[in-house]
Amino acid sequence: MKNFVSIADVADVQLLIEMGLNYKNNPLADHTLGNGKRLGLVFLNPSMRTRISTQLAAQNLGMEVIVFNVGQDGWSLEFGDGVMDGTSVEHVKDAAPVLGQYFDVLGLRTFPSLKNRDEDYSELVIQQFVNYAGIPVVSLESATLHPLQSLADLITITETFNEKRKPKVVLTWAPHIKPLPQCVANSFAQWMTVWGRAEFVVTHPEGYTLDEKFTNGAAITTNQDEALAGADFVYVKNWSSYTEYGKILNTDRSWMLTAEKLKLTNKARVMHCLPVRRNLELSAEVLDSPASIVTQQAANRVWAAQAVLAKILQCKFNPVRGARGVYE
Amino acid sequence: MKNFVSIADVADVQLLIEMGLNYKNNPLADHTLGNGKRLGLVFLNPSMRTRISTQLAAQNLGMEVIVFNVGQDGWSLEFGDGVMDGTSVEHVKDAAPVLGQYFDVLGLRTFPSLKNRDEDYSELVIQQFVNYAGIPVVSLESATLHPLQSLADLITITETFNEKRKPKVVLTWAPHIKPLPQCVANSFAQWMTVWGRAEFVVTHPEGYTLDEKFTNGAAITTNQDEALAGADFVYVKNWSSYTEYGKILNTDRSWMLTAEKLKLTNKARVMHCLPVRRNLELSAEVLDSPASIVTQQAANRVWAAQAVLAKILQCKFNPVRGARGVYE
Amino acid sequence: MKNFVSIADVADVQLLIEMGLNYKNNPLADHTLGNGKRLGLVFLNPSMRTRISTQLAAQNLGMEVIVFNVGQDGWSLEFGDGVMDGTSVEHVKDAAPVLGQYFDVLGLRTFPSLKNRDEDYSELVIQQFVNYAGIPVVSLESATLHPLQSLADLITITETFNEKRKPKVVLTWAPHIKPLPQCVANSFAQWMTVWGRAEFVVTHPEGYTLDEKFTNGAAITTNQDEALAGADFVYVKNWSSYTEYGKILNTDRSWMLTAEKLKLTNKARVMHCLPVRRNLELSAEVLDSPASIVTQQAANRVWAAQAVLAKILQCKFNPVRGARGVYE
Repeated sequence: MKNFVSIADVADVQLLIEMGLNYKNNPLADHTLGNGKRLGLVFLNPSMRTRISTQLAAQNLGMEVIVFNVGQDGWSLEFGDGVMDGTSVEHVKDAAPVLGQYFDVLGLRTFPSLKNRDEDYSELVIQQFVNYAGIPVVSLESATLHPLQSLADLITITETFNEKRKPKVVLTWAPHIKPLPQCVANSFAQWMTVWGRAEFVVTHPEGYTLDEKFTNGAAITTNQDEALAGADFVYVKNWSSYTEYGKILNTDRSWMLTAEKLKLTNKARVMHCLPVRRNLELSAEVLDSPASIVTQQAANRVWAAQAVLAKILQCKFNPVRGARGVYE
Repeated sequence: MKNFVSIADVADVQLLIEMGLNYKNNPLADHTLGNGKRLGLVFLNPSMRTRISTQLAAQNLGMEVIVFNVGQDGWSLEFGDGVMDGTSVEHVKDAAPVLGQYFDVLGLRTFPSLKNRDEDYSELVIQQFVNYAGIPVVSLESATLHPLQSLADLITITETFNEKRKPKVVLTWAPHIKPLPQCVANSFAQWMTVWGRAEFVVTHPEGYTLDEKFTNGAAITTNQDEALAGADFVYVKNWSSYTEYGKILNTDRSWMLTAEKLKLTNKARVMHCLPVRRNLELSAEVLDSPASIVTQQAANRVWAAQAVLAKILQCKFNPVRGARGVYE
Repeated sequence: MKNFVSIADVADVQLLIEMGLNYKNNPLADHTLGNGKRLGLVFLNPSMRTRISTQLAAQNLGMEVIVFNVGQDGWSLEFGDGVMDGTSVEHVKDAAPVLGQYFDVLGLRTFPSLKNRDEDYSELVIQQFVNYAGIPVVSLESATLHPLQSLADLITITETFNEKRKPKVVLTWAPHIKPLPQCVANSFAQWMTVWGRAEFVVTHPEGYTLDEKFTNGAAITTNQDEALAGADFVYVKNWSSYTEYGKILNTDRSWMLTAEKLKLTNKARVMHCLPVRRNLELSAEVLDSPASIVTQQAANRVWAAQAVLAKILQCKFNPVRGARGVYE
């Protein structure tokens, strides 16, 4: 695997899930695989779980990790082609090749603007790093996707569901007071449909249809009760509108997942990527009940990241570090 | 020792002091004790000495350390039970169990609001982390106490005073222009009275009486000169009012410790936890004289933290990580 | 070498360049030299390349590194002698000795005010750390100099130029929209003139004359074309005025280095310390051409830092840690 910015980079999803589960049983199984290799974690936006779990994963593989937090005012990057006489102090074409010289693998966290859909959905930022860093790039969440989260989610479903049939997995929109990215929902939908080992349903109010390239033919309904019926897993998540980009169209709090609604399901386990707004997205009663597996999900972020880093380290790539006057 | 949030967690204060002194003589005596163990240091508030000294202590024990700085706007925690439709993005009930999954020991730094005394003195924040993290929690200073500082202070007094009699130790209030927490004063008073190996006196102006549960029967006077007479150690520290909570009641700069006042003492060594306001709390003349042992005190923070971490690592605890759907 | 705050600390510049080139060929040649030694990197101002490259260099030498970012509002230092009743919370006389207790080597990043030339050019901040830390201090860029950058620059010129004659090296001022420090220009001029293995020319518009103590008799001209003629290396860099201190006197964008201007040179390689403003300081066409060696320069920061740290570690110094009541 050369990069990990979406599921398109993954040759075998099931193998990656199993690698994650193996590392969970034996965290130090490959504790020398990353010796002498350096992981740079560059955060253009804040992060808690991703930041810590990826560091732990790298340490388990014997890699050295350096974290670089891009301050809000410290290092605003330029992506355009004009004269740099504004507030951006460095062009990605100049910054990325340098990071490519310092590290063997680069993790990058960035968020969408939620203003300009075309720009966000072109994944301008992470793609430029892929283009110019010359080393493998791992998404720590980008403008439209969060593949490390999705891999952890599939690991969680796999280890929790022990029946022979396919589980029914429902992704349900939840209320929120802030316009959030579509990343987690897009990514989960994409991984579920490509993986294909579950009956997958998406439910959301009118106006919250996700980009079809990610839902990928999944069953979609605006009737939440219908969707929840017989579910084995309910993934709760808010997202802002894709069609009326970045807007909050619905404030109907009846979409919150409650213990009452959970009765419609097949004793479903409840998932959320965290952070979660209690009593807004999900009732405290559900979160504090045995139905909730949100902590388990977050813990599995370590094994997802470890599987991805291991797959990249195993790959015999010949980095072409940058395009201009760069040497090995 | 399961947690270290106050002296109540310590079975044997003298033993902890001696462990610290042993580590000072031989920093790497237990350099494999923490192998494979991870310390997470979570800072809700800024820190310099505590941050660095705790990292050094953990490294001396062979632990891996990950530092997580909670940005001012990045991760405001919720502690209440209502609907999370305000500015807080995550509830401690959801955040703490995840940290409990990632780490073996959790260090936490938090400050009081100085607005709501009941809330501050209930130690709401750190207690919730103790309740929900499911792993040992070490206070890196909390709303009302700073036990790692106090342990370093007792180590400093022990190694500096070589006579058979009990030393006279005076904690004196000092002027300041900002309302500061009572943590260092509370904690020092508590450790001195429980330890019992010194004659301990507290002196401060009217209105600065500390909470009795911490001064614990210590001698208290508003006559600074009387308190200083014959002192072997003078601990200088400002705090805001406990009774008129968080207020500055006195701006009388004559409470500053000067070389002139030091003449009243028995050639006392002068202590302060740092950072110190020169010529406001303590005269530059005193700070720059051999009487000052403030740098030694700060250096001893390493050995205090190392003793505490070692005591926790030696303990055979069975963490119950979180209360909901959490597994090992 | 005891400190590294300017070229005056370096006994043999050529030896340091060759150490850097050796480490580039064999990064782990001295991978145990720093075992048990701790490097503290204190950033009073932001940094990307310096921060990461110095960490990598220290890791290559087996040192432990702790990074401490001084928040904008977290820890404003006092340098004066008065009553500390303002916004500064700690005096350098109290902070530096503590850092000297925690670390074996201290790296410090600070910037000029660009308001008070006398204060900036006295190097008040870094000199106080040298005076009070009691351990070797490495400049990670100070108010007037950036010696780690200059050493990387000389390493880059040395490895790139293979002819027997001296190369012609031109430092040319470039337009910018913000007033920048003179550090990189001062430092490069100083290293070039002391090194003496190049024909060195400085060119800039009227009003941008650098401090003579750094240009040190170098050829200086306000005719950029004349300077560029026959150049083997062109170092592009903006700086604000030294004479009318911190001011922008010239906004003539014709000083930008373009492909057209590069034709005047002897197929010169183009250098810049980064971050660079594209199409303002340097045309994108030049930056994206094989003439640019800016990424190579940035990569060489690792080997420069490694040579400096190694030279300091090899030195048998007896630290006198602080001046007041400090012990080993």
